[in-house]
Amino acid sequence: MEGKEEDVKVGATKFPEKQPLGTSAQTHKDYKDPPPAPLFEPHELISWSFYRAGIAEFVATFLFLYISVLTVMGVDREPTKCTSVGVQGIAWAFGGMIFALVYCTAGISGGHINPAVTFGLFLARKLSLTRAVFYIIMQTLGAIAGAGVVKAFQKTQYELLGGGANYVNHGYTKGDGLGAEIVGTFVLVYTVFSATDAKRKARDSHVPILAPLPIGFAVFLVHLATIPITGTGINPARSLGAAIIYDKERAWDDQWIFWVGPFIGAALAAMYHQIVIRAIPFKSRA
Amino acid sequence: MEGKEEDVKVGATKFPEKQPLGTSAQTHKDYKDPPPAPLFEPHELISWSFYRAGIAEFVATFLFLYISVLTVMGVDREPTKCTSVGVQGIAWAFGGMIFALVYCTAGISGGHINPAVTFGLFLARKLSLTRAVFYIIMQTLGAIAGAGVVKAFQKTQYELLGGGANYVNHGYTKGDGLGAEIVGTFVLVYTVFSATDAKRKARDSHVPILAPLPIGFAVFLVHLATIPITGTGINPARSLGAAIIYDKERAWDDQWIFWVGPFIGAALAAMYHQIVIRAIPFKSRA
Amino acid sequence: MEGKEEDVKVGATKFPEKQPLGTSAQTHKDYKDPPPAPLFEPHELISWSFYRAGIAEFVATFLFLYISVLTVMGVDREPTKCTSVGVQGIAWAFGGMIFALVYCTAGISGGHINPAVTFGLFLARKLSLTRAVFYIIMQTLGAIAGAGVVKAFQKTQYELLGGGANYVNHGYTKGDGLGAEIVGTFVLVYTVFSATDAKRKARDSHVPILAPLPIGFAVFLVHLATIPITGTGINPARSLGAAIIYDKERAWDDQWIFWVGPFIGAALAAMYHQIVIRAIPFKSRA
Amino acid sequence: MEGKEEDVKVGATKFPEKQPLGTSAQTHKDYKDPPPAPLFEPHELISWSFYRAGIAEFVATFLFLYISVLTVMGVDREPTKCTSVGVQGIAWAFGGMIFALVYCTAGISGGHINPAVTFGLFLARKLSLTRAVFYIIMQTLGAIAGAGVVKAFQKTQYELLGGGANYVNHGYTKGDGLGAEIVGTFVLVYTVFSATDAKRKARDSHVPILAPLPIGFAVFLVHLATIPITGTGINPARSLGAAIIYDKERAWDDQWIFWVGPFIGAALAAMYHQIVIRAIPFKSRA
Repeated sequence: MEGKEEDVKVGATKFPEKQPLGTSAQTHKDYKDPPPAPLFEPHELISWSFYRAGIAEFVATFLFLYISVLTVMGVDREPTKCTSVGVQGIAWAFGGMIFALVYCTAGISGGHINPAVTFGLFLARKLSLTRAVFYIIMQTLGAIAGAGVVKAFQKTQYELLGGGANYVNHGYTKGDGLGAEIVGTFVLVYTVFSATDAKRKARDSHVPILAPLPIGFAVFLVHLATIPITGTGINPARSLGAAIIYDKERAWDDQWIFWVGPFIGAALAAMYHQIVIRAIPFKSRA
Repeated sequence: MEGKEEDVKVGATKFPEKQPLGTSAQTHKDYKDPPPAPLFEPHELISWSFYRAGIAEFVATFLFLYISVLTVMGVDREPTKCTSVGVQGIAWAFGGMIFALVYCTAGISGGHINPAVTFGLFLARKLSLTRAVFYIIMQTLGAIAGAGVVKAFQKTQYELLGGGANYVNHGYTKGDGLGAEIVGTFVLVYTVFSATDAKRKARDSHVPILAPLPIGFAVFLVHLATIPITGTGINPARSLGAAIIYDKERAWDDQWIFWVGPFIGAALAAMYHQIVIRAIPFKSRA
Repeated sequence: MEGKEEDVKVGATKFPEKQPLGTSAQTHKDYKDPPPAPLFEPHELISWSFYRAGIAEFVATFLFLYISVLTVMGVDREPTKCTSVGVQGIAWAFGGMIFALVYCTAGISGGHINPAVTFGLFLARKLSLTRAVFYIIMQTLGAIAGAGVVKAFQKTQYELLGGGANYVNHGYTKGDGLGAEIVGTFVLVYTVFSATDAKRKARDSHVPILAPLPIGFAVFLVHLATIPITGTGINPARSLGAAIIYDKERAWDDQWIFWVGPFIGAALAAMYHQIVIRAIPFKSRA
Repeated sequence: MEGKEEDVKVGATKFPEKQPLGTSAQTHKDYKDPPPAPLFEPHELISWSFYRAGIAEFVATFLFLYISVLTVMGVDREPTKCTSVGVQGIAWAFGGMIFALVYCTAGISGGHINPAVTFGLFLARKLSLTRAVFYIIMQTLGAIAGAGVVKAFQKTQYELLGGGANYVNHGYTKGDGLGAEIVGTFVLVYTVFSATDAKRKARDSHVPILAPLPIGFAVFLVHLATIPITGTGINPARSLGAAIIYDKERAWDDQWIFWVGPFIGAALAAMYHQIVIRAIPFKSRA
């Protein structure tokens, strides 16, 4: 028995399946999963690359909020959307920034720019708890700073128009909003897992090379679909940053939705990828 | 005689043609076509990767319908399209999701997410009949579930606005609709064949690496052109899923168009690629 | 003296320049320019790949006109552009189709889909005269067929709305139209030359892998800029095909602009690339 | 002790950190930073590739202004933005042209097309002062020529509608405009540094291959956000070229903002990348 896992490629070229259900795990691999990260990794804390990664997450989330919230403000202040970049332009601003920023920070911090992504990858033990907490704090601080700079440009209109704060829109229930955040974050975090999987990267050349593009597109697409429902969060740092700077009751009432929803969605995506796609719990580690 | 097939590259750099018409097939190849899949492959049925592929098709088609139909609803419920992402935003939602989902599922199930793609690849013997039938069932179930979740968000408006169901629009005949579905699906399945061809992948580095992007763009482009005619199907699971959840007479009357059209278009694309482009029937197998 | 040509990379990392002006050409190369194609290559005419390439050009130009003209019709027939994909959607249809079709046909015919591209590459001796003439004929036939199918869908409205035929719009002179076609085609053919240059492909990994994407974007961008002037030709087959099917005086009066302009633009781009960028006339051939 | 710098990949796969803060620099590298360019490099001035690079910068900036300003004019002259490609189309024209032109000129001149990019890379000692000054002159001349050709098409309307000249819009202070230019240029030049870093290119395959795409997207995204504030400069040659051809007081009053802002933004991005991300001042050179 050969023992090498068989796969299907783009377009499902059928490969003969050699490994029946229930047999022992394969012994020869063309890829290597990194070992699970420990919860606490003391070496990290005396390493420059740890702090550099946190700074990169701060700067990236700052730029993400700055560009996206400024785009939202530019659309909202026009008397008619036709004289602005429109709602579609807002979706491009969010998704496009994630594409550019993941491209820039992937090799520095992993390019999370989103506590839900950090949480999902932590559940899959791709980074330590120390690092996850540090990232989430830096992302949130970056988001507050980014929204703050936009408000500094146009204080009155920011307060009038909402500054990109997330809340459940008229005509939808809180449950709708929570559901939209769960599925939307699932789309994003599922794409992140697909883009970073060691096995996929080893076998399909498009996986590592295109990686930042489908991640950015996932964010763009979820915005196309759910801006009418919640304004689209799927990123608790972005929702909290906008809420803190806007600081009106409406933004605070629904804030829990933009933390609970994304974290549930990220957990489901992590489970789907690790358990269904990779079947990691059923494999002995090499 | 050298016997190596000569080709032309991007920009038609001319290569001397060494192999006259009617000579025997080349003997040395830099690529290897996989053998045709058998109709029934019993080994598949006891393999985890077979069921995993079906689950991945279900999840991908679920997410495809969820995001795209939700975007359609968001556009249709606005009093003027200018305050929504617009019809172009709808086209991006369909095409962009196919890009992201083909990227994510290519190595798991082949990334079909569409019975017409499965049918075309089956005709070219890229997968077994067992697998093709299993995929089509899972895609259809996923589509029903995806449209169902959107309806759960906004039941009244879903029934009022059509929920992205496909039918031939006023001003066009059934024949127009059928023709639009045939040519539209041809564009998509022709792109899929070009992206998955073993010979092309071996010779042009852009073919395997970009693959999910032109496939997604093909879906986007067909939507730009044929949304005014049929709302654009080119995916029988998507059309059936939306029809079952919408469940009004208008959606059922034209449903056959969205199965017959895509299957004819996929068959034509398979014939064009296998017979004209690859001339496979005229070659002896290595 | 080392004799290897030095270059600058993305971001102009400065390399020490070792080869003074006027010294003999370098002797060691990391790339190989193919020899210039002969004007007539008799072997081509008895080769299947020659005819296959012509068929691929026909099918690609057919699909290009079908999708793009159908998109134009869908926009023009709406009472307000806001309920359609808009003028920007038209630009995406033209550019996106070129991206997808160059991706699909690059390895079969070189992916021209445009007599101006064929003409520019012929001037640079990248293909034989026989092949160039054959391609241009097949492209034109494909364009006529593509526009014809769109007219078959909606005969009355096609004649009313112009069917995507090119002419110089009110407020612009014929000279403006000619200038717009020249510079627009220069942008496209310059991108094609950059994407297919043997030296660039050998040195920058992004050149061969991304190739179809900037070519498609070039078409998209020229449409953004010059749709208001001429409807944007930069492709004589597309302009002639639409004119033959529309067949009204207005389309015929300006038709010469859409052949003379693109051919001048393509010739200038060929000269710029071969003489300025590659300095080929000043080099001895290896 | 192993001494090899450790990194995190896309998705923050955690690597054990082996190199504590304050230890000596690593000795084995998988990449090589080019040595800093000298301020004056006499060899350059007798090299054809130096002049060719200048010509390429001229032509690229000419085409950049031609397509983008023509798109701006096409949008502004329509009675309602809905019958044009819209403000979003303008953003695509600027960003898309940078994508296509960086793709085409990366291997010739480094693909700057922007004095702010040249300035940032000069500060990081990626090119000589001679080359930087030569590039900026050629870029500015190209921009003037590009805007001039657009004016030649439509003199009256150019003067009426502003010809894409940059100034701080009503409702914003000069300080807002300066801030928008600083952060906007930071986004662009930070992306350029990320795309051209020798260490990143060696470790992540997406960095060199996708490079022109995120750079173009950065330009697109900054336009989405800051067109309402200043029309978006982030490129002093583009702002000066449009101002010279428009030549009205309003364009001249604010011109300093579009040189000071981008140069500050570029300097900050260079410092961020060299000092924080690469920690180059703290390393001994190999």
